[in-house]
Amino acid sequence: MSFIRNILNSRSQEDGNFFLQLKEILGFKPKSKFLYITAFTHRSMNLTDEKGNAMNYERLEFVGDAILGSVIAGYLYEKVPHGDEGYLTKMRSKVVSREHLNKLGEELGLIDLVQSKIPKSNFGSNIHGNLFEALVGAIYLDRGYKACEKFVYKRVINPHVDIEALEGKVISYKSLLIEWCQKEKNTFDYQIYEDTGNDELKHFSVKLIINDKVISKARATSKKKAEEKASKRAFFALQERITKS
Amino acid sequence: MSFIRNILNSRSQEDGNFFLQLKEILGFKPKSKFLYITAFTHRSMNLTDEKGNAMNYERLEFVGDAILGSVIAGYLYEKVPHGDEGYLTKMRSKVVSREHLNKLGEELGLIDLVQSKIPKSNFGSNIHGNLFEALVGAIYLDRGYKACEKFVYKRVINPHVDIEALEGKVISYKSLLIEWCQKEKNTFDYQIYEDTGNDELKHFSVKLIINDKVISKARATSKKKAEEKASKRAFFALQERITKS
Repeated sequence: MSFIRNILNSRSQEDGNFFLQLKEILGFKPKSKFLYITAFTHRSMNLTDEKGNAMNYERLEFVGDAILGSVIAGYLYEKVPHGDEGYLTKMRSKVVSREHLNKLGEELGLIDLVQSKIPKSNFGSNIHGNLFEALVGAIYLDRGYKACEKFVYKRVINPHVDIEALEGKVISYKSLLIEWCQKEKNTFDYQIYEDTGNDELKHFSVKLIINDKVISKARATSKKKAEEKASKRAFFALQERITKS
Repeated sequence: MSFIRNILNSRSQEDGNFFLQLKEILGFKPKSKFLYITAFTHRSMNLTDEKGNAMNYERLEFVGDAILGSVIAGYLYEKVPHGDEGYLTKMRSKVVSREHLNKLGEELGLIDLVQSKIPKSNFGSNIHGNLFEALVGAIYLDRGYKACEKFVYKRVINPHVDIEALEGKVISYKSLLIEWCQKEKNTFDYQIYEDTGNDELKHFSVKLIINDKVISKARATSKKKAEEKASKRAFFALQERITKS
């Protein structure tokens, strides 16, 4: 314990504001100060704990990366019910992209808190994202998943995750599909016919034909609904080609 | 709601034991039955929910995979304090390997619960692991992280994760290193000398030289401790080469 006390004392002496600034970012008081000191210790400090294990933020990055992945996965599962596994994976990788994490870490000013033997001006931009991941890892180990999830919602999801923007501002799949067909010089045709069958309500069926091939079919209670439904199906069937173009 | 009721009824009629067997596996009663039915519905059933979204276990696999990753990450962080980020990542990938997940799913007999239009004998072995991941995802969404973590400890970590076995049954790093040197025809030499300096206790320093190159150094209060410490450092420095051989 005296080892930890020494580390804590030295951190407080060197930078009296560390825990104040940290509390500002976290919105709560840390239980295990040691975890947060680790989260802001760069490997160049060459610190080890009393058992000789390296003490820097890299192991916490590993934990934070996993927790971020879980929180975002749970969020997307609920928010994007039409997306399949591959689609959800792609959306998550946009949310936790290196670029996005760097931006988050930079906004929170995490680099101001890091202890390093290397001048801060020498770090590349990934330091911001790495510190952010490490901080998430420290919060999880310090306070548990629920508190960490709350932090991720407050700092990542609520201010920055816009499902519609992520989905490319899809309002009408029909307009999206037509736009893509025109851009790519594909012919398209919505073949619509009444198809009430034994239903009480009038129904319509539609075949969406792109370049003389039936890409999707749908049936609904209005022409517009049937077309939108068929467009949505076609969109997900052609997703890879559409998002690449 | 009537849609969900229909699904629940059909599942109970077709297989009255479904929820009984499930409770046996889970060790608790599900809150949201719908999630577990989804976790055991194969895409060949072509089911959709009332909004037309596909209803099968693939999206839950995405969630379960993330949660498993988090639980194992937190566990390894505590249990393997000497392992760096890369080492922890490798250990985790052993725990959640396709092969291991398949074994877990098979042991729990998850395939008996799945609804599918494809005969079960036609499935490859990955179905077991996929169902296991989907089940973990369903538990997380149904009961939250803590309960899910408990399930993962009960079903994965406690019965199957043996840190020592994962680390290749490392008891003495010195014996491991010597064994490797002999196998690979590397020369090795532990150069040990007293190095008490200003310390009250007697100390020893050791240089570990492999193929005429100093690979690691260590200092401790006994020759044996210093040698083991230097061996451990060398082991992690040479880890890639050792584990490949």
